[in-house]
Amino acid sequence: MTLTPWERLKTTLRDIHHLKDAAAVLSWDQETYMPPGASHARAEHLATLQTVAHRQFVSPEMEELLATWLDPETGQLSREAAHTLDAPAQALLRETWRDFHRAKKLPSSFVTRLEREVSLAQHVWAEAKRTNDFPLFLPHLRTLIALKLEEAAYLGYRDSPYDALLDTYEPGMTEAEVSRLFAALRPPLMTLLEQVLASPVRPDPSIIVGPFEASKQLAFGRMVLECMGYDFRCGRLDLSAHPFTTSFHPTDVRVTTRVDEHDLFSCLFGCIHEGGHALYDQGLPVEHYGTPLAEPISLGIHESQSRLWENCVGRSRPFWRHFYPRLQTYFPDQLKAVSLDEFYAVMNRVCPSLIRVEADELTYNLHIMLRFELERDLLKGEIPVEELPAVWNQKMDDYLGIRPQKDSEGVLQDVHWSMGAFGYFPTYTLGNLYAAMLYEQACREIPDWNEHVVHGDLLPLKAWLNRHVHRWGRQYPAHDLIQRITGQSPTPGPFLRYLTKKFGDLYGIPIPSEFSQESSIPA
Amino acid sequence: MTLTPWERLKTTLRDIHHLKDAAAVLSWDQETYMPPGASHARAEHLATLQTVAHRQFVSPEMEELLATWLDPETGQLSREAAHTLDAPAQALLRETWRDFHRAKKLPSSFVTRLEREVSLAQHVWAEAKRTNDFPLFLPHLRTLIALKLEEAAYLGYRDSPYDALLDTYEPGMTEAEVSRLFAALRPPLMTLLEQVLASPVRPDPSIIVGPFEASKQLAFGRMVLECMGYDFRCGRLDLSAHPFTTSFHPTDVRVTTRVDEHDLFSCLFGCIHEGGHALYDQGLPVEHYGTPLAEPISLGIHESQSRLWENCVGRSRPFWRHFYPRLQTYFPDQLKAVSLDEFYAVMNRVCPSLIRVEADELTYNLHIMLRFELERDLLKGEIPVEELPAVWNQKMDDYLGIRPQKDSEGVLQDVHWSMGAFGYFPTYTLGNLYAAMLYEQACREIPDWNEHVVHGDLLPLKAWLNRHVHRWGRQYPAHDLIQRITGQSPTPGPFLRYLTKKFGDLYGIPIPSEFSQESSIPA
Repeated sequence: MTLTPWERLKTTLRDIHHLKDAAAVLSWDQETYMPPGASHARAEHLATLQTVAHRQFVSPEMEELLATWLDPETGQLSREAAHTLDAPAQALLRETWRDFHRAKKLPSSFVTRLEREVSLAQHVWAEAKRTNDFPLFLPHLRTLIALKLEEAAYLGYRDSPYDALLDTYEPGMTEAEVSRLFAALRPPLMTLLEQVLASPVRPDPSIIVGPFEASKQLAFGRMVLECMGYDFRCGRLDLSAHPFTTSFHPTDVRVTTRVDEHDLFSCLFGCIHEGGHALYDQGLPVEHYGTPLAEPISLGIHESQSRLWENCVGRSRPFWRHFYPRLQTYFPDQLKAVSLDEFYAVMNRVCPSLIRVEADELTYNLHIMLRFELERDLLKGEIPVEELPAVWNQKMDDYLGIRPQKDSEGVLQDVHWSMGAFGYFPTYTLGNLYAAMLYEQACREIPDWNEHVVHGDLLPLKAWLNRHVHRWGRQYPAHDLIQRITGQSPTPGPFLRYLTKKFGDLYGIPIPSEFSQESSIPA
Repeated sequence: MTLTPWERLKTTLRDIHHLKDAAAVLSWDQETYMPPGASHARAEHLATLQTVAHRQFVSPEMEELLATWLDPETGQLSREAAHTLDAPAQALLRETWRDFHRAKKLPSSFVTRLEREVSLAQHVWAEAKRTNDFPLFLPHLRTLIALKLEEAAYLGYRDSPYDALLDTYEPGMTEAEVSRLFAALRPPLMTLLEQVLASPVRPDPSIIVGPFEASKQLAFGRMVLECMGYDFRCGRLDLSAHPFTTSFHPTDVRVTTRVDEHDLFSCLFGCIHEGGHALYDQGLPVEHYGTPLAEPISLGIHESQSRLWENCVGRSRPFWRHFYPRLQTYFPDQLKAVSLDEFYAVMNRVCPSLIRVEADELTYNLHIMLRFELERDLLKGEIPVEELPAVWNQKMDDYLGIRPQKDSEGVLQDVHWSMGAFGYFPTYTLGNLYAAMLYEQACREIPDWNEHVVHGDLLPLKAWLNRHVHRWGRQYPAHDLIQRITGQSPTPGPFLRYLTKKFGDLYGIPIPSEFSQESSIPA
């Protein structure tokens, strides 16, 4: 039985995906159940799977196959393909070529050098963080920056090397566009923060006192995941050191969380956040499995799904009108004296802090902007690497009014740079911007959404996201997807409206006229 | 950096092993934690991994590489290789060539046909067993027999097609040799069984009454595994429908068991049996990982390890002298009125039964002989397939004095034939023969072994097995390995001595003079 070229393309892509998905199973196992003694062997297993997948993807056979429809150098579709293929098929080719072209551009000797340095740098970073010793990490950071500039040169860019790196995580996004969005976001965000800090309202976190039994926290998290429409027949919830979501196929999308018996929110928001990611992966079109049409389009869009659920829904008052009485039945002794309003206020308490992953919804984005500005300027050579801690601390002071006393709470806190992940940070805040745009639109389009939420019926939102976001995979680039759904290019407006309204209400701040327009987001 | 051919061979073999080990991780996950909705996708993932591994193994590059040292047609080492390579290197080439040659002989179109039929036949078998409908399974069994004869023809054999299939599981073993061993084993076994059944001693299983809390059963099983020297830093214990052991590397060897709250022995002997397998895999020489020198030599030897621990040790009186008081502390209410002797007698109670996997140590082997004789005769065409149930039932009557009332308790009980695994059954009894030979030798060589066992110190036996069995991987074929260790070719003598002594003691049967010789096995 001879396959047509199109069938061969899909079969080949699917087989490569199988190898990558197998690697994902091994990684999940590594983070959840693998015995500690196996870590060295596991790294070798993963490396082989990735190498074999890469080799099959950048093979001459793949190039020849792609040449059936396009110019392998430019990605330009042949006249015939452009006229005969439908839009999904053209998108499949466009995205496959994008991956192919990027993969081909990096010489394998470079990839090996980078991997070796990253592996070493991560090790040194962990030690430097532990011992609060930036100079230990400094030479590795220097090397990584040089390597990432080399990578950018291989990948190519129009305006700045940073563009090439950012494009890895958020295809089509540029440094200029992020700068523009962040410039529009920062002043109103800082004004709002000032107002919050000046407010006499001071939610008191000490009214919520544990311990909260781990098994009950997990049971509650699982129940919320079920209400969100996360399909446990095609998924699992496990524990890991850091919560994550992983997908091996739309029928096998797993989430993890962590539990702290003295923190009621860690497990819960781990579940909701990862649940948002997981709904995206479970909602990808299974019939296109193996091709880009069944892959998420960007980290920013992925993050929009987790943040929409975690923040816009999971930290909203209507959500807790339904779920708080239920949570009280799980922990009657600990919560009987805490009212819904008090609970809601503590959960959304704004408080500048040193650590990004512990930040509230409002200050979180200032942490991101700081990182974006620093990594951008590092790559431009505008900040000498050895001065990074001083610049970091000064910016923390400028943006948040607090200053780390040690680098382990400052420049050394995040793993990203030690992994060579420059250009990754902006996707977190892009996720917030997209989330607010999508949620504003969803609230307009879902009939009586507020009524659904207050009754714990979250499925209409899942269905809306399935229809408007998930099912498209990589058919529409992030910008186009947002534009299609909301009628606007990515913009900070909806996010600022959302924050201003939410924290204005909570902290008794008069809402400026430009934000007081009728919003259909449930409050 | 250019690799030498020897380095290239080891690297290539290791990379192929990585793919197979990745598949093993996916299979483990499938049996333990995989969500049910993922089963279809998982089958596809596994098929791709196996295909890629197979393709890399039978590649022209591998053939060319092997030709550096041997004739790829015959496996004959070149004169130079035979003179310059050491024994492990020669064994590595011998076993690699064996695998290569066998893999090359099966046309991929045949493998695909066989896999398709097996997949279908397993499905139909499960249904036929459920509905007690042999005629439903009959056409598939017929097809499988034809396919296995075809496979034997591809693989080649000297005396009988059965040899080629048996050789898959027990390299070097032949139908004639199994027939000879079994012929020597059966008469004394049946005599012993008759004596046991005629004995007035009748252990009463109803004195051991549960329920036995699952978590405690698991904790006890885990404790026994630790005493055996199973390394939990490089392993795990999980639950699955059927207990199994799987290995991804000597540093990651996992066991599973099952728990029945009304059966104290199911979880426990699952742990000990699989623990025996796991010690073999954990004891393979890690420095040879990826090559046959770090692979188990045969199923019979593997089974000898599990049976030695489960039966020779785990069902022995000295073992329980240490562990029974401890088990009583786990289940004080249930066991306080049961003496060690009573417990020991119930655990070793001989009782002919219909189901192989529930059989006692003595009758178990009659179940195996029956299956061996039937599959051998089926392949010879000496039993018409449609008469199989009648022949099965008659043989059950002849050997065990009982007769299945339905085929689901008879010919349909085991999965093996539906998987095309003809030639597999004898390895269970070979495992028993090897186990008794090895244990007799170990008891001679380990100073004061009895003293160790009665104090729960099982590590000297693990160390002995590590040194004499595990560390050799596939360096010595099973026959040679047994010969090296015990000074004898495989023989039923030690097993018969072991059974006669054990069940003679238990059932008050006079021990025949030929078995009364001094034995150093602790009793």
